[in-house]
This record gives sequence, structure tokens and C-alpha cells, in this order.
Amino acid sequence: MPIQDRSATPQTTMLSSTPTTANGGGENEDAWVWNEIKAEARRDAESEPALASYLYSTIISHSSLTRSLSFHLGNKLCSSTLLSTLLYDLFLNTFSSDHSLLSATVADLRAARQRDPACISFAHCLLNYKGFLAIQAHRVAHRLWALNRKPIALALHSRVADVFSVDIHPAARVGKGILLDHATGVVIGETAVVGNNVSILHHVTLGGTGKVGGDRHPKIGDGVLIGAGATVLGNVKIGEGAKVGAGSLVMIDVPAWTTAVGNPARLVGGKEKPNVHDDVPGETMDHTSFIYVI
Amino acid sequence: MPIQDRSATPQTTMLSSTPTTANGGGENEDAWVWNEIKAEARRDAESEPALASYLYSTIISHSSLTRSLSFHLGNKLCSSTLLSTLLYDLFLNTFSSDHSLLSATVADLRAARQRDPACISFAHCLLNYKGFLAIQAHRVAHRLWALNRKPIALALHSRVADVFSVDIHPAARVGKGILLDHATGVVIGETAVVGNNVSILHHVTLGGTGKVGGDRHPKIGDGVLIGAGATVLGNVKIGEGAKVGAGSLVMIDVPAWTTAVGNPARLVGGKEKPNVHDDVPGETMDHTSFIYVI
Amino acid sequence: MPIQDRSATPQTTMLSSTPTTANGGGENEDAWVWNEIKAEARRDAESEPALASYLYSTIISHSSLTRSLSFHLGNKLCSSTLLSTLLYDLFLNTFSSDHSLLSATVADLRAARQRDPACISFAHCLLNYKGFLAIQAHRVAHRLWALNRKPIALALHSRVADVFSVDIHPAARVGKGILLDHATGVVIGETAVVGNNVSILHHVTLGGTGKVGGDRHPKIGDGVLIGAGATVLGNVKIGEGAKVGAGSLVMIDVPAWTTAVGNPARLVGGKEKPNVHDDVPGETMDHTSFIYVI
Amino acid sequence: MPIQDRSATPQTTMLSSTPTTANGGGENEDAWVWNEIKAEARRDAESEPALASYLYSTIISHSSLTRSLSFHLGNKLCSSTLLSTLLYDLFLNTFSSDHSLLSATVADLRAARQRDPACISFAHCLLNYKGFLAIQAHRVAHRLWALNRKPIALALHSRVADVFSVDIHPAARVGKGILLDHATGVVIGETAVVGNNVSILHHVTLGGTGKVGGDRHPKIGDGVLIGAGATVLGNVKIGEGAKVGAGSLVMIDVPAWTTAVGNPARLVGGKEKPNVHDDVPGETMDHTSFIYVI
Amino acid sequence: MPIQDRSATPQTTMLSSTPTTANGGGENEDAWVWNEIKAEARRDAESEPALASYLYSTIISHSSLTRSLSFHLGNKLCSSTLLSTLLYDLFLNTFSSDHSLLSATVADLRAARQRDPACISFAHCLLNYKGFLAIQAHRVAHRLWALNRKPIALALHSRVADVFSVDIHPAARVGKGILLDHATGVVIGETAVVGNNVSILHHVTLGGTGKVGGDRHPKIGDGVLIGAGATVLGNVKIGEGAKVGAGSLVMIDVPAWTTAVGNPARLVGGKEKPNVHDDVPGETMDHTSFIYVI
Amino acid sequence: MPIQDRSATPQTTMLSSTPTTANGGGENEDAWVWNEIKAEARRDAESEPALASYLYSTIISHSSLTRSLSFHLGNKLCSSTLLSTLLYDLFLNTFSSDHSLLSATVADLRAARQRDPACISFAHCLLNYKGFLAIQAHRVAHRLWALNRKPIALALHSRVADVFSVDIHPAARVGKGILLDHATGVVIGETAVVGNNVSILHHVTLGGTGKVGGDRHPKIGDGVLIGAGATVLGNVKIGEGAKVGAGSLVMIDVPAWTTAVGNPARLVGGKEKPNVHDDVPGETMDHTSFIYVI
Repeated sequence: MPIQDRSATPQTTMLSSTPTTANGGGENEDAWVWNEIKAEARRDAESEPALASYLYSTIISHSSLTRSLSFHLGNKLCSSTLLSTLLYDLFLNTFSSDHSLLSATVADLRAARQRDPACISFAHCLLNYKGFLAIQAHRVAHRLWALNRKPIALALHSRVADVFSVDIHPAARVGKGILLDHATGVVIGETAVVGNNVSILHHVTLGGTGKVGGDRHPKIGDGVLIGAGATVLGNVKIGEGAKVGAGSLVMIDVPAWTTAVGNPARLVGGKEKPNVHDDVPGETMDHTSFIYVI
Repeated sequence: MPIQDRSATPQTTMLSSTPTTANGGGENEDAWVWNEIKAEARRDAESEPALASYLYSTIISHSSLTRSLSFHLGNKLCSSTLLSTLLYDLFLNTFSSDHSLLSATVADLRAARQRDPACISFAHCLLNYKGFLAIQAHRVAHRLWALNRKPIALALHSRVADVFSVDIHPAARVGKGILLDHATGVVIGETAVVGNNVSILHHVTLGGTGKVGGDRHPKIGDGVLIGAGATVLGNVKIGEGAKVGAGSLVMIDVPAWTTAVGNPARLVGGKEKPNVHDDVPGETMDHTSFIYVI
Repeated sequence: MPIQDRSATPQTTMLSSTPTTANGGGENEDAWVWNEIKAEARRDAESEPALASYLYSTIISHSSLTRSLSFHLGNKLCSSTLLSTLLYDLFLNTFSSDHSLLSATVADLRAARQRDPACISFAHCLLNYKGFLAIQAHRVAHRLWALNRKPIALALHSRVADVFSVDIHPAARVGKGILLDHATGVVIGETAVVGNNVSILHHVTLGGTGKVGGDRHPKIGDGVLIGAGATVLGNVKIGEGAKVGAGSLVMIDVPAWTTAVGNPARLVGGKEKPNVHDDVPGETMDHTSFIYVI
Repeated sequence: MPIQDRSATPQTTMLSSTPTTANGGGENEDAWVWNEIKAEARRDAESEPALASYLYSTIISHSSLTRSLSFHLGNKLCSSTLLSTLLYDLFLNTFSSDHSLLSATVADLRAARQRDPACISFAHCLLNYKGFLAIQAHRVAHRLWALNRKPIALALHSRVADVFSVDIHPAARVGKGILLDHATGVVIGETAVVGNNVSILHHVTLGGTGKVGGDRHPKIGDGVLIGAGATVLGNVKIGEGAKVGAGSLVMIDVPAWTTAVGNPARLVGGKEKPNVHDDVPGETMDHTSFIYVI
Repeated sequence: MPIQDRSATPQTTMLSSTPTTANGGGENEDAWVWNEIKAEARRDAESEPALASYLYSTIISHSSLTRSLSFHLGNKLCSSTLLSTLLYDLFLNTFSSDHSLLSATVADLRAARQRDPACISFAHCLLNYKGFLAIQAHRVAHRLWALNRKPIALALHSRVADVFSVDIHPAARVGKGILLDHATGVVIGETAVVGNNVSILHHVTLGGTGKVGGDRHPKIGDGVLIGAGATVLGNVKIGEGAKVGAGSLVMIDVPAWTTAVGNPARLVGGKEKPNVHDDVPGETMDHTSFIYVI
Repeated sequence: MPIQDRSATPQTTMLSSTPTTANGGGENEDAWVWNEIKAEARRDAESEPALASYLYSTIISHSSLTRSLSFHLGNKLCSSTLLSTLLYDLFLNTFSSDHSLLSATVADLRAARQRDPACISFAHCLLNYKGFLAIQAHRVAHRLWALNRKPIALALHSRVADVFSVDIHPAARVGKGILLDHATGVVIGETAVVGNNVSILHHVTLGGTGKVGGDRHPKIGDGVLIGAGATVLGNVKIGEGAKVGAGSLVMIDVPAWTTAVGNPARLVGGKEKPNVHDDVPGETMDHTSFIYVI
């Protein structure tokens, strides 16, 4: 079953009292998720007193998701020369200046909850997912970059690379509903574009090529899934709903709803040739089966 | 020579006055290793005063390996919202509640000392090996998970992923005598099982597949060696003493004492077909030669 | 166009008032770069008050590049058990004891500025490039190792591996003008040698093999470019100006000015056979195009 | 010359372009002082690069005095269990909720600048005067206390007592234009009231008595000056413009414009008996001369 | 009413369900106080989410008063060179080795609760009273001193002097039920002895004299009350239930149930001459009234 | 026996192998004291492993007293906005620029060792005496002030006032061989001068008066002893070898070798009237006996 279908069904049924307009409720939706997060954190604090202090400081004591996230990121990314108070301010001001940032955050939380079976709660994702946190910090860096505040955008970029081992250039454009699963070692270049509802596993590179300057990085369509360790290089286009196999090296366009595997990658599935699965090791299964790592 | 054989012979001869019942001495064995560690740390402190403070605080001042390790992990993994004293307590209490944890620690120390030529002392491994430290923290997280203390197990898991770039799900079952060499980027999924005396290089993924829920990750037998950057996906079985080549993508079972290489991987050695080495680049040597990275 | 040629031309023209003896000016050259860095930092501090504190503490307040770098590394690599003051002292004393270390630092700054289009200033590299910082710390660790101060060299190595996810054995010999781009996950083994003006992308392994002890790691010639995720194993020789494709697994010698690609790698370009480009996906372009990631 | 007269004249003449409505200009006045502070900090940063980082992070980078002060207090008063981000938020929210707090802050800055010859700039007071900082933190604690948020008011009180050795009960009412000079060891009890433009030297106690509960601490009138080490006990009234000699023990009412000295204190000056100075050691001078310590 | 009488009556009646054997219940008593503290902390955490993290980390998450106190002291007294984990261990081990230390702690908590009207809960005292915390740390330092572990006892002493501005020589013998109110500036010398149920205000010195070595500091009887800023010098004896006025300088023995006031002090009350109160300022009231500062 | 005589004789005899030219040996003398300190620290580290880390980092690992002291002060006085590395540099550079600073440090160490019976070793003083550390930091601040680097001198002054509760204006001139015993609450004003071999107890104020600007603080002669809590106000002269009683308030000149006691102080001893001791409490003993607090 394609990944973008999964998001519509299975795990949301586990979520109690989810509003009917899921995924499109705007501020109501955001408020509902924040309430869930606080309820989860309270349950965890009750069951595990040793963690309660952490849960109160990061979640329960805050009046909004924006504040909780800004606090958590400020404390995660601070260093002896970039104080937590400075970063907290920077996150809070930037999130407050553009509500679409929070919507994207909520979409990312939903993405983790729906697509990653190991994600047991929104709070778990908010606190512990380095990929989730790296994306949120990137969105702030991206906005600062867009405001031509490049030095501070790059300083933030550098802290995310140090702390989370996730390296997304501040200029890269990233959609919403993103899942960076495990996340360690992800590198996304300056002119890359990532659509909505994309899932990217660890060690994935969306890189440029040495040949050309300017627009030199991949363009990833909506709903794409890129397996662990895959490398996509150059200004190539990965079409909507396409998949890239784990460990693949892709330097060509991949049409929508198609799968690319191998080093170098070839196309093995897709709308046009849905039955081309052969029997060589690693390709005997459904074309999604070998790419997703949980 | 198989990796599991090496452990029985070469470097142990370098260790002075090792007890005759090496690798099976239980508490005596553990005490002997701890004494070695303290002696090594004292020698280092004497020869390098600039490091003496570090060696005293992490090793020499402690009355047991459990305390030294709990102290070191507490200080390595703490953050501004998860205090070192809290983590120290958590490690100390968990290690004290189950002596088998310490036995596994000692087996891991021996593994590094015997299998990694770059490991010059037990103390070196205890203090500096991020793979070793990540495994010890994982064992504590795993025990907390087993006690249904999932939120704190996941918080610990998250800290290990941030600090060491090693991502082992708390539910994964890991044996003893493990060497995670270099360790950066290792990802081990929720239902994975790793046997005893396994060596895993950096950037290795033991991942699941998107197709199925439930038991979806690899099962790694005793004495297996997995080369740098290898990706093993799905509920496949890597048999005892098998080897996986660096950079391989494995989605099939690998029989015992057999080697898998390539992307996708094929089987190139083993008991059944010991002479199948061919002449393509990278496979002209003994089948162990291209997988081990020090 | 070969990477080593690029360094001679394009971006240096952007640098205002560079001295005519660029790349060979010794102390004058170093002073000129340091003045550039301070000027850049002052401009950034002026335009971004929120970052001014950081820029003053790390750069503007210092009287020399050596002091600035020692301060920055001390604060980046310190931990609760290895204090920043101790590390600062260690860096300062070591850099001061051997001027060639600073020359290499300056050459690395130039390398990033010239070869990485995403590097917008020397100050940006000095502050934010984890690869650059990891290399500088390695040079200090290497010198300590050479002085037989192994325990402290290994402690430093361990901190770099934790903080930057870059793992270079202190014994490895590394030239000058090095660019470790993105850098996360780079592993360089004990007996590896890296020449001058080498560019290495993230997730690159220069590893050994399990078969032999002693001199067991790759020897990388001047001007070599190694793409993201490439793995080079064994005491093989990568000749001057050679290239290794992203994601390749190389276990053979690669002649000078030649390109190796694939898993396992084969030779696809070079002086001897300059027109051997074929049409399989990923190899239709200039042989440099698929390896370089920015 | 009485201390309250001095404030009207001498040092204000040193302040360039002070608005004509000094001491009563409200928001304009506050803005003027904040501009002065930033200008002073910029001058200091220019002349002393080693301090520039500190001046930018605490003053120059901030958009308002409220933010600068909240940042500085948050970083001064934080501990490993009370994070700077939490305190910063608390200060920022409280200062923002009641503009009169900022007016009082500005009046205190003016008081230090006018009455303390050792105070060379507003910035000097804002950054370095522990008495000034303790008073600002007290005002926030007092407001929290008034909102019945007693536990957090007391936690703040405790941090101020630890960090500045100034112990003002959160319930105590303190006016504006206060100078706590040197400040170490000042203790002000729960039901004490301190008027406007009061100067209090170090080691001063405004204490209660064991005899009675309820309203049991001193009431200090406007413009009072209390010398170093003086102890005022019980619900006594120190009248407007009165003075208490250094080291005095006062358990009686002191009329307005009168001086109390000695242990126990007796009245030695005042409107009614302005020429009663006698010749015993310590009283041969103007009655203000022995109380003021700079 | 004498202070030692107050402790027997007024405020204890406010404490709900106090066991009948108050002040002598041993372990039951200690457990009851610990339960009260946790209940108070839970109430505060509920009413003030911003403080909940602090309350959980310092109190609620702990399984015993010993652990809570050791954690709190470890975090309060740590420095960059004396880590919190080391201090935590030291406190925990010492408290665990001698149950009488905990009894004394509980008696001190009761003392604050009963004698200080500003003390609104046991938790308030445990967390916020620097005098209380200084005494607990002193008891540990004293025990280490008694075990001839002088260097670490003095290091602890030094931390208490820095952090709390309370300076009690580790060799000084201090009873139980002690209230150090406000506490800043208290100095207690090496051969001083302080009995049970003693109340000492801030800035009190129990000092020696330069004339003689050996046993050269005051001996303070049970139930004594020493007012703010009082200085008691030499090997003098302050009898049971005696009082020393605020700001007094005492260099003579003070009989039991007698009051000393003034600089130098004279005896003004007591069993033998109960009606000697005269009318000079500061002595017209009940002899307790001028000494007690809250 | 006068305090200044004691320094010449008693305790130095306890010091093994002290060079014959004690107190005047210059660099040899300094080296001898540093060797003693290291030997003491090594003994302590041996006997108390829990403290060894602290002793190595602060003393044993350093190559000179200047480095040890700079390191210790940098770590003691740092804050989140004034980094330890910055302060370390500042101390190291200033001490290195003027050898007389180190001589004064050594004289202070000797003063503590000789005059304070509670000082059990030089190392004890170096590490733990807040008065000693405050004086050393003051000397650096004073030198910066003299170089017209006022803002940084005042920042240092402020940190000393926060951390040690010792408040010495950077402009104050302080001699060598100073003992600030206990030190909490000491305040020394801008135009004060303190001679050599002066002993000052805690809570002592050398203050100005409000009457006059300019030179308005006390001038303390060589060998003076000022008791705990004494307050000396105004531009008065305390002659060589004079003594000020604990708790005294002095606003008059005190001739050489004379004692002042009381509030206000009168002269009670001295060369001219050596037998004037009377029988009022506190003055029946040798005139040194009531002032010295250990």
C-alpha cells in the first residue's frame, strides 16, 4: 500500500476524538494536537515521576505549542557561545511572526504519528525525534534566510548539523507533513526543494553536482518516499508518489508513482509498468518493502 | 580467519595476568577487568597530567565499574533539561538491579580490546568509544522498556541518538560481546535481534520494511560481522558467523558462515561454496578482507 | 573541469584585494585571511545584532586566528568532564608550538571558500563548518599522538567523534587545503594518508580490512575528490587528481586523474581512456558531475 | 547637604541631552534612558573588544530595556534546576504585564547614577550592580506574590538570596528610585515597607521582632538613607528624609529629617535640633557624613 | 514569650495530622515529614505549572528525603570543577551511612516551620532556605572531617561559603533543630559548639580570638537565640535558653536564660534579675523583641 | 603578642625546608611555594580519590602558579555570559604582564598560612579561601583599571561581588601579604588604600562618606588588623600596626600601634598608653584578643 494512502487510514483510528476535519482544520486542528500532547505528557509524568520534571519543563508548563517547541529547541541547540535565551527568543519571535510555520509543525507531528509505527505519541515525536526537531529549526533558519539574515540562519544551520547530525541548507525549500525518520546523516543542499508529505530516511543525501552552479539540487515531489542511505544528485525531478530504494544512487528523473533502485538506480515500478518485478534478490517483494526502515 | 576465532587468540596474549577462565569468569572476571581499567587510567594519569582530572573523575575515583560507567554516561548524556544527577541515578539503579548488565558490559569491553586493533586499552574503550557507550545506555533503556517504563526508555534512546548518532530502538534485543566500531549512524529497529559477539561497523542499518507491521526487522546470529554502510532490511535472518560486505543492501536470509556482498547483495562465500571467489574488482581477496574497517 | 583547476580560478576573483602571492604567502597570507575574517565578522555583527555577541566572543575579540580558533574549538568540544579552559590551553599551546598547523588551517579555509559554492565567507567556514573544525582538532590530536601523548590524543578524537560525528584516528596523516564538506559520518582509519587539496564529502569511509594488521588503510593522493557515501577499503592508492563516485565501494588502486564509480567500483574515466563514457544512467555526464555534493 | 538634595543637582549635569522633564517623563523618559544605555554599551564594546560579546548579549542586541533586563536576570539567576529560559519568560511576561515596573527600574537606574559617585554609567548599573538587580527581581517576585503565586515568588526570592546575598521577602513593598549600594547582606522582612528614593547600604537589616506576629517590620519613609550595617527592628517608622547611621541598632521611631546613630540608636540631628552636634568621636561632622559608603 | 516556648505551641497546631510523638518519633516522624513535603510539592506543582519541573526534579521524583536533599545540594553546590554527580554521591553515601544525620535534618525542618512565621511549608524550607541547606551540607562536611577526610571536607566548606555565604568550619559541632534564619554572612569557627534548638540570625559570628590557639570559639547552649549581626568571640559559654541581642558584641559568658545586649554586651535580663529592664531606647520591650528578625 | 610579630615567627617553623630568605626570595621563593602547593595537592589526591579530579584540574596539571590560579579564577568567576575561557585569558595575560602580581599572590598565601591557624596548607588557601581569591581577582581588575580598561575592570569587580560576596572597587589600592579571613561582606571603596600585611576579617567596610567626593575612603597602614564587622568610614588614617576591634565604627584617625574599639570607636591601647586597659566587658584581655576570628 502506498505510503500516502497509509496516512489516510490506519493509525488515525487509534487517536481518540480526532476532529472530523483532520489534516485541514487549521487553528482548531493545531489546538487539538496541542491538547493531545499535553494530555500525553501528563499521563507520562504520572506514570514516570523521574521524567516528570522533563515533561513539565518542556511541555506541560507551556501555554502553547509554539512556546513549548521554542523552549525545547532553544535548550537543545544552545551552546556556551549561543545562549538558550537568545535562541528561545529567536524561535519564539519567528514562529509568532508566521502562523504557517506552526501549521507545518502540526502536519509533521501528524506525519510521524501516522507513518512511523514506532511513534507512540505526539509528545514522543515532539521531544525525541531529532528529524522532527531538525525540520522545525530548519523552517526558522529558512525564514531568516529569506529575510536576508544569512549569518544567523547559517549559525542555526550549523547548530542543527552539530546536535542532530542533520544538515539542511537554510535556503532549501521544505514542505509540510515531512517525516525525517532516524534522520542522522541527512544532507539537503541549497537549491533542493522537498514537497509535502515526503518521507526521508536516515543517511539520505539530496546533493548537487560539481559541474554546475545555480539550481543544482533535486526537486522532490509530494508524497515521495526515499529509503535509508539513498543519494539523489543533481537537479533531477523525483515525481509525485515516487519511491527511491534504500542505498540507491539516483542521478536521473524518476516519474511519478515510480520506484528507483540500485547503484546506479534504474526504474523498477510505476504506473506504466506495474508488473515488472523480477526475481533477483531484493526485488521479489512489493516495491515499497525494501525502502522503509522503522 | 573467522572473526569469532580471532577473539579466542591473538590479542589476549598481550594482556598480562589474565585469569585462565577468560570470558567465563563471571564476577571474578568483571573484577579483573575493572582492576585493569583502573591500572590503565592510573598509568595514563601519571604520564599525562592534563588528562588526570578527567581520568580521576571518570574512572579512578570510583569504587566499581558500575559506578564509573553510570557517572560517565550520566555526564555524557545529560542536557539542560535532563540532569546528570537524574541520569546517574537511573543508570546506577538499573545496573545494580541486574548483574547480567555488567557482565555484558565486560564482554563488550573484551570485544573491543580483542577485535579492534585500534583499541589500546580497556580504559580507552570505556571512555572514548561512542559505540560502546551507546550499547551500554541501550541496555538500560531496553530494561526500562521491558518494565513498561516506555517514556523514559525513549527519552534515553533520544539522548543516545543525539549525542552518539547511534539509534537503537529500546525494544531491540542485543546480546553481549558486541563491537559497534566507529558507530556513527548505526540504526537498529524495534524488532531487531542481535546475537552475541557481533561486530557492526558504522552507518549500518538493521531496518524494517514498510510492507508489514509487527516483527519486521533483521535477526542477526552470533559472531556475525556487518561491514560499514551495510543495510539489512526486513525480517531476514543472518546466520551464525555470516558476514555482510561494506555498502551491501541485504534483503534476503544469509546462511551461517556465508558472506553477502553488493547492492543488492548476493552470497559469495561460505561453507557450501568456499572457492567461489572470482576476479571482479573488490572480490579478489579473502571474503573477510573488504568488510572490516578499523 | 577538474576540481583542482577550479580552485585556481573562479571564486578567488571574488575576493577583494587578495595578495598576489595567494596560496603561498606564508605569514603574510595568514594575516590577510585573518583580517578578512575579522572584517566579515564585523559586517555580520553590524547587520545582525542578535549574533554580534557570538561573533565578538568567537572572532572579533581575539588578537589572532590561533586564539580565535582555539577558543572556538575549546568551547565546541568541552564537556562537563573536559573543561573548555583545559582544551583552550591545549589547542593554544599546540598551535603555538608549530606554525605549520596555522598554515594548514588557512589553506583549509581557502579550500572551503574556493571549492564550496555554499561557503559565503571565511568566517562562515571558521565558525560553522564541522568538517573544517574537525580537521583542525585532528591536526592537534595528530601532533599529540606524534609526541606519544596518546591518551589525550584519543580523548580529543573521541570528543570530535561525539560533537561533529567525524571520526579521524589521531595517527592518520592529513595534508592541507582539505575540504570535508558536510562531514557527518566521515571515518578515516589509523594508517590512512590524505594528500593536499583533497575534497571529501560526508559519509566517506577510508577504512582498513580485517585481514591484515599494520599499514591497512587507503593512501589518498593530492587533489582527489571522494563523493558522498563512498567507501574506500584497504591499503589501496587513489592517485593524484582521481575521483571516487558517490556511494562507490573501492577496494582497488585508482590511477591518477581517473574516476572510480559503482559498488564494487570500476574505473570509468582518466587520462588513458578519456572517451569511455557510456550511456547507462548516472554516467552520461562529465565524470565529475555525479560526485560532488554541495 | 542632604542626600535627597544631591540627587537634584550635581551629576545630572554630566548627562548629555537629558530631557527637561527628568524624573517624570514616563515613557519618553524610559526610552531616553534605554538609548543612553545602548550608547554607553556601544562605546564600551568599541573600546574593549574582550567585553563586547558580553555587552552585545546583555544590552546591545535587545530591542528594549525590558528584554535586556529580563535576559540578564534570567542568566544571572538561573540554576541547573531553574533554567534561564524559564526565568527569562517569567521576567519578560511580568514586566510586560505592568508598565509601572519598568518606570521603577528606570528610577532606580537614575538613583544609582545620581547618588553613587562610583556609578559611571547607566549600563554599569544595569549590568553590574547586584543591589539594582536584586531589586528588579524582587519587584517581579512581589507581583507574583500579590497574584498569590507564592511558591514561584519564594523560589525567585531564594535565587536572589543565593546569587546576590540580598534577601528581600516577596511580600515586602518597595518604592522606586531605590539605591541598594553594595547590597551584600541586605535583609528586608515580610511586612516591611520602603518608600521612594531610599538609599540603603550593605548589611542593612529591616527586621521584625520575635514578640509579635502580623505587621512586624519597619516602615521606611521617602528619601531615607540607611548606613552600612544598620539594623532596624520592629514595626517602627523612619520618617521622610531621616538618616540612620552606619552600624546603628534602631528600635524606635525616627522622625522626619532626623538622624539616628549608635547601638542602641539615639537621635542626633533633625529639623527641631539642627545644631546639637557634639564633639564625641564620630559625631563631629555633618550628620550625613558617617553613613554613606561608596 | 521565650522563643523556646513558642516552638512547643503555636504553629504546630496548624500542621494537620501530626503524629502525637512529635519531635521524638524517629523514623516514623521522618517519614511523616517526607510525606508532608511531597504533598506540599504536589500542591504547588498543581497550582504553578511553571514551577512543576523544579518541584518534580528536586522533590516529587525522589523516593526519600535523603535522595531529594542529596540531589538538591549536589545541584546547588556543584561547580565546573566539582561536578553535581560527584557531590550527589558524596551526600547520598554520607547521609546513608549515619541515620542520625537525617534525624537532624528533620529536626531542622521542624525548627524552621515552628519558629519562623515566614516559613510557609516544609518544602519551602527544604528548597529555598540557604541556612537550612548550609547546615545540612555542614553536617556532611563535619562527618568527613571526623573521618579525617579533611581536604574534601574543606572543599565542601568552601562551596557552601561561596554559594550560600555561610561559613561553618567543618570541625565545628552543631546540634539539631537549628534555625539559621536568612543566614547570609554567618561565620562559625573551628572549635565552636552549637547546642540543640538554637536559632541564629544572619551576619552572626561565633569567632575565636587571636590570643590563643586550641579551643578558642564560643560554646552555645541549647535553645539559645542569637540576633542579627551579633558577634560572639572567644571560648565563652552562652548558657541554655540565653539570648544575644542584634548587633551585640559578646566576649563574656552569658548565664542560662539571660539576655546580653550592646557593644560591648552587658547582661540585661535573666532568671536572677528579671526586672532590670530600663527605659533607654531599644530596651523598653520584652527582652526577646529586638533580636528576632523574620 | 601583636599579629605582625606572629607572622615573623611561629608557623613558618612548621614548613619543611623553607628557604632561608623567606618573604624576600623573589622568584625562588615563588617557585618554592608552588612546589609546596603541588606536593600538598598530590598528597591530598592520593588520600582522597573523590577529590583527585578537582586537584588535578585546578593544581597538579598546571605548569605554574600563574596558570593554576588563572584557571581556578576563570572557572570560579565565569557565568553564562562571561565565559571561563575569556576570563582565563584575561587572568593569564594580566598576571604574565607584571610579575609583581605573582609576588603579591605568594605573599598572600604566606599570610594565610602564617596568620590563620585554620589554614592547613597553601593548597587549601589557593583553592578554598574566597578572600584570597577575591584579592587576586581584584589585583587584576585594579591593573585593568589603571590601564583605563574600566568597563572590564568593573565587570570583573561585579563577578567577584556576586560569587564571593567581596566588593573591592577596582580603583582601590591593596598591598601584599593580605589576609581577608572568611571575607563574606567585605566592602572596600574606590579611594581606599590598604598597606602590606594587613588582616581584615569578614563584614568589614572601608567606606566613604556622603559629604565629600574625591579622596573619601580610609587609608590602612601596614600590619593593621581589622576585626569582624568593623566599619571604617571617611578619609581617615589607621596607622601602622594599629588594631580595630570587631564591630567597631571608626571615623577618626587611629595612631600607629593603637587599638580602636566600640561604636563609635575610642582608642584603648597603643604605644603611648600601653597600660590603659580597664575592666569593662570585652576589654579585660590583651587588646588583640577580641578582634581575631578564625
